[in-house]
This record gives sequence, structure tokens and C-alpha cells, in this order.
Amino acid sequence: MKRIAFLLVAVAMGTSVVAYMAPAPASGQADGQGAPPFVTKIPPGYRNWRVISVAHEEGDLNSLGAILGNDIAIKAYREGKLPFPDGAIIAALHWRYVPSEENNKVFGRSQSFVPGPPTNVQFMVKDSTKYAATGGWGFGHFMDGKPADAAFMKPCFPCHEQAKASDLVFTRYSP
Amino acid sequence: MKRIAFLLVAVAMGTSVVAYMAPAPASGQADGQGAPPFVTKIPPGYRNWRVISVAHEEGDLNSLGAILGNDIAIKAYREGKLPFPDGAIIAALHWRYVPSEENNKVFGRSQSFVPGPPTNVQFMVKDSTKYAATGGWGFGHFMDGKPADAAFMKPCFPCHEQAKASDLVFTRYSP
Repeated sequence: MKRIAFLLVAVAMGTSVVAYMAPAPASGQADGQGAPPFVTKIPPGYRNWRVISVAHEEGDLNSLGAILGNDIAIKAYREGKLPFPDGAIIAALHWRYVPSEENNKVFGRSQSFVPGPPTNVQFMVKDSTKYAATGGWGFGHFMDGKPADAAFMKPCFPCHEQAKASDLVFTRYSP
Repeated sequence: MKRIAFLLVAVAMGTSVVAYMAPAPASGQADGQGAPPFVTKIPPGYRNWRVISVAHEEGDLNSLGAILGNDIAIKAYREGKLPFPDGAIIAALHWRYVPSEENNKVFGRSQSFVPGPPTNVQFMVKDSTKYAATGGWGFGHFMDGKPADAAFMKPCFPCHEQAKASDLVFTRYSP
């Protein structure tokens, strides 16, 4: 049961363009012991940041997302600057993916999907000193304003490590 | 053939959360004669505006979109203020809806969709004097920076008129 719960968590993690599903760790490694520091405070003002891109995840995740960046992150994206400089923060806002009855009525067919209730907000915070153990990035995941625990956060880094060529970031800038 | 072309145009219009498909007008009314003024210049700086919401349209449209607002629009949305005040501008950025091979490889299954090339950018500009004939809103549609012509723009208002309860705007604010 514990393992199933962890897998569900791993799948929930995967919902994000920021944090993708990683293989479940070996039994006993999901307890947060010796875990690197995670982002436990929501960066202020993130809802006012500029758009990097948008995304849709199907399956269990079933989300629509907006990926935003603070000024440092946006500047780095627009200049194609890698690795991202310290201070860069990327936010992924996820909402449930739901059909819009109102829009479909106007269309005359079912084709319109919009955000439902928020599901989570995720962050990647670049600080090459503080987060040295995880490629210079701190990872954060918040539901209803509350941070996920260390066990939940454990798959973030090994998964993002697969995006080494783009400094551990999956999302591309959409013009 | 002319009618088919118009219908295709109407479908293309429908791609947007801002501008939805309207019934084709009676024959001979799509020539732009006597058309109300449309938005023919792209509002400067719109790519830096804040996020109102995101959207996905299936079907022929096959788009992922970000709906952004200038300061006046964002303030009105957040305060739940209707009708929108003069000066409010809503932008809908649309990209082709494409699977992310890179993300799916990490997921181990096909579930991730991201923006492909840009398809169009649409605007609704509130000016109750200039656009009095179309509910106080000017409509704009741009492909590669070029505005659509009057015939193309004709279905915008009759379609948006169906959203009278929300001042002709379909998009809701996503927190």
C-alpha cells in the first residue's frame, strides 16, 4: 500500500512540465532522510510573472498549465542563455483540464477545454550554492498553498536530470 | 466555393477563446462593406502581459493558447468588474497543439502536449466610443504580424454577443 501510494505521488509529480515522473526509488528511500533542500515557501508575486509557455498533460494528470518566469528567468529564456543564472525562478501553475460547456455550446460541438480548479503550483528556483546537490535547482510543489514533503519531492531531480542539455528544464519558450 | 472558403474562415476564427465561430452570415454580407472598425495594429508589449487563463481547442483548430490581459483588463478580472472599462485589452496567443516527444520519452508514454509554431494572435480592445457598433469591443486577428481583413473579422462580434452576461468575453480568470 505504501508503495502504491508512492507511485501515485510519482504520477502526481509527473503532471507538471516542470517536474516529471521518475522511476520509483528503491524501497525505504522515500522517507526524506538525507534529502536535499526543497523549496518550501511560495515565491511572492509569481502570479504576475510573464508567460514562458503553456502545456497540457493527459492521463491521470489531466491538467492544463501555464509556465511563468520571473524577470531573470524570462531574460535568460529570451536571450537563449544557459545555464540559467542564480535567481531565476520558473513557476508551473496547473489546473484540472475540463471541457467548457459554455464554449462548446457556441461552437456547436465539443472541442473546447479550459482550466478547472487549481491542482498544484510548482517551482524551480536556481541557486547554485543552496541547491548544489540537485544541479543548482531547488524544486517546490504546493497544493492549497502547502508544500509537499521530502518524500514527495524526491523524484524531481533524477527526472529533471534527463534534461541536462537545457539545464534540467523541460519547458521551451513559446514566442 | 466562396461559401466554403468563408466557412473555413469561420472555423479558423473559432480557434480562439477570444473569438468563437459564429453562424455564417447571409450570402453577400461577408465582403466587409459597412464593416465596423477592427483592430489593425498589434498592441505594443502584449507578450509581457499577465496571464488571465489558458485553453486548448481540439478539431481543425488544434491549438494551445495563453490568454493575457493588460493592467486594466487584469485589474477588472481580479475585481470581478463588469463591464470591462475602456482601455482594457485581452490578448489570445495561439500555437499549434503538438505532442512533446521529449517529454513523452521521460514519461514513458504519450501524454504531454506543448505549443508548436504560433498560429495567430487575437485581441479584444475595449473602447466604448470607437467600437460602439460592436458592444464596445474592437476585435483583432493577426497571422505573422498581419491583420485579417474585414470579411474575416465579421463573425467575431455576433459570436461574442452570445457572451453578453460577461461583457462579450468568454475567458474566465484562472487563479
